Amino acid sequence: MEKIRVGIVGYGNVGRGVEKAVKENPDMELVAVFTRRDPASLSIDTPSAKVYKLEDAFSMTDEIDVMVLCGGSATDLAVQGPQFAAHFNTVDSFDTHAKIPAYYATLDAVAKKTTAIMSTGWDPGLFSMMRVLSGAVLPNGSDYTFWGRGVSQGHSDAIRRIPGVQYAIQYTVPIDAAVEAVRAGRQPQLTTREKHTRECYVVAEVGADRAAIEQAIVTMPNYFDEYNTTVTFLDKETFLREHREMPHGGMVLRSGVTGDGHNQIIEFDLTLDSNPEFTGSVLAAYARAAYRLAKEGSYGVKTVLDVPLAYLAAEDRMSLIAHLL
Amino acid sequence: MEKIRVGIVGYGNVGRGVEKAVKENPDMELVAVFTRRDPASLSIDTPSAKVYKLEDAFSMTDEIDVMVLCGGSATDLAVQGPQFAAHFNTVDSFDTHAKIPAYYATLDAVAKKTTAIMSTGWDPGLFSMMRVLSGAVLPNGSDYTFWGRGVSQGHSDAIRRIPGVQYAIQYTVPIDAAVEAVRAGRQPQLTTREKHTRECYVVAEVGADRAAIEQAIVTMPNYFDEYNTTVTFLDKETFLREHREMPHGGMVLRSGVTGDGHNQIIEFDLTLDSNPEFTGSVLAAYARAAYRLAKEGSYGVKTVLDVPLAYLAAEDRMSLIAHLL
Repeated sequence: MEKIRVGIVGYGNVGRGVEKAVKENPDMELVAVFTRRDPASLSIDTPSAKVYKLEDAFSMTDEIDVMVLCGGSATDLAVQGPQFAAHFNTVDSFDTHAKIPAYYATLDAVAKKTTAIMSTGWDPGLFSMMRVLSGAVLPNGSDYTFWGRGVSQGHSDAIRRIPGVQYAIQYTVPIDAAVEAVRAGRQPQLTTREKHTRECYVVAEVGADRAAIEQAIVTMPNYFDEYNTTVTFLDKETFLREHREMPHGGMVLRSGVTGDGHNQIIEFDLTLDSNPEFTGSVLAAYARAAYRLAKEGSYGVKTVLDVPLAYLAAEDRMSLIAHLL
Repeated sequence: MEKIRVGIVGYGNVGRGVEKAVKENPDMELVAVFTRRDPASLSIDTPSAKVYKLEDAFSMTDEIDVMVLCGGSATDLAVQGPQFAAHFNTVDSFDTHAKIPAYYATLDAVAKKTTAIMSTGWDPGLFSMMRVLSGAVLPNGSDYTFWGRGVSQGHSDAIRRIPGVQYAIQYTVPIDAAVEAVRAGRQPQLTTREKHTRECYVVAEVGADRAAIEQAIVTMPNYFDEYNTTVTFLDKETFLREHREMPHGGMVLRSGVTGDGHNQIIEFDLTLDSNPEFTGSVLAAYARAAYRLAKEGSYGVKTVLDVPLAYLAAEDRMSLIAHLL
C-alpha cells in the first residue's frame, strides 16, 4: 500500500497527538517533524521520521503529501497557515472563532494547487458539523453547546499570571440542571452563569496571600466574573499527581419541534481523557481527506462542512456503503 | 426567493412528516403528492399542493425539482427508487441494510442526469454518518449502537399477526447497564440479550388465551427469542390513549483508545417524540442537498457519506463558515 506521507509542523501537545494518531492509521506514515526549536533538541517517538528546522520544509515539497499544522491559532497559524498552504496540502485546527473568515481569506489567496482544510479538531470541528447538521434537520429549534468537564488552557494560564501562584489548573464544568432542562426539550434561556461552573486548583507560593489570590481569580473580568467559581488550594505534590492529565469534552444539543409540538432532541457528546490526542486524531483523519481531495484536483480552502465523510475513512467508499451505511 | 419544488411519493406517516418539514423550511414548497390510492380520497395538509396518481408524475418532470420517496423499503422503494431516479432528483430512506448494495446498483444504472440520495433518515442516515466519522477519528476502538426507547413497527406487526391479538405495540429499550459500561470506556462484549429489552403492550380479543399469546410472543424466533421480553395486557381504551404516539431514538457510541491508554468516547443520541416526523425532517434537508448537487451537475447515486454538510443547510456556505464553524 502506498502510504500518505505526513509532516507535522510544531511539536507541542497537539503535534505529539498527531504523531500518535498516525501510528494508529496503517495507511499513513510520519515522514518529518518541523520545529522552530533546535532540531537536535527534539526527541520524537517515530524512529523512521526526522526532525528539521521549519524553513527546511519548503525544499521538501516532493517528500510530503500533507502538512499537519499544530501551532497555536493566536500567533503561529496566522503566519504558518498561508505560508504552508501555498506549497503543501495542509490541515489545521485554527480555533479563534471570530477570526475564521479572515483566516479563510488568507488561505484562499494561496491554495491554488493545494488543498487546505482549516479549523478541524472538535470545536471548531466536530461540534461545528453537529451544529450545521442538526440545524438543517430541525430548523425550528435552539442550539446549546456545553464544554467540559475539562481543562481550559486559557483560564489556567490566566490564573498562573496572578502574583503568588506557583501552579494552577482550571476545569470548566457543565451544570447538570441546565443540561437536563435542554435534554427534556424545555428550550431554556440560559445565562453564562447557568451553563457552566469553573473549578480552579492552585498551588500558592510559600507566604502568599491565599485570600487575595482567590479574590483575584473569582473577580477576573472575561475569565471568571460571570461564573460561579471555586478555588481549591493544594500542596505541590498533590497537584502534580492529580492534575497532570488534559481531559476535556462537551456536548452539542439541538432541541427542535416538528409538526404539532413533537420535541426532537439531537445530542453529540465527547468524553475525552486526552484533549490533545483527540484533536490530533481528528487532524489525522482530515489529513487523509486533504490527500484524497488534492489527488482528485479538488484544490482550495475546505472546512469540515465541505468534506464528505467518506473521505475521512481508510476504507474505500463502496465498502463503507455496504458495511457502515 | 426561488423555492425548491418538492414532490412527495407515498402519503403514509413518513410522507406526512416530510410535508410538515417542508413547511418549516422557507426555501421549499410542496407542489404535489403522488399516491397509489384514489387521489380524491386523500386529504393533505398543504392547500397549495395537489394530489395525483403515481403514474401522473412522469409527465411532470418540469414542475418538480426533487421527489421525496416515502414508501417502504421492502416493496415500494425497490421498484419506485429506480423508476423515479431515472426522471427526477430523488431522496429516500431505504433502510434494509443488507440490500443497500443491490439498491445502490439499481439507482446507479439510471441516475445519469439526476441526483439520487439514498438511505437518508436516521438509521441508515445520521447513525451511519456517526459510525463513519467516529471510526475514522478513533481507528482503535469499538462501535456500539442502541435503539430506543421506541416503537418498532416490525415487531408490533409481528405481534398483531398472533391469533387473539386485537391491538399491539412493541417498544425496544436499551439496557442502562450496557450503555453505562460503554460510556465508561470499558468496551464490553455485549450479547443481543444484554443490549436491549423488548416491552410489549397487547389488547387481547374477548375470550382469547392470554397465556398462549404471551408464550407466542416471547418465543417468536428472530423477533423476541433472543431478548428478555415483557408482555402487558391492557384494555382497549388505555391502549389507544397511552400508545398512540411513535417515539423513538437511540445512540451510536464509539469507544476508542489513543496514545498510552487514553479513553476517548464519541456519543450521538436521538430522543424523538415522533419518529416519522424526524425522518421526514432528515429527508427534507437531503432534498435541499439533492437540488443543489443536481444544479451543479453532480449527478448519480449519493449517500449521506458523500454529501458535504454545507449542502444541507438553508444558509449559504460562507455564512455557515463565519457563524457556525
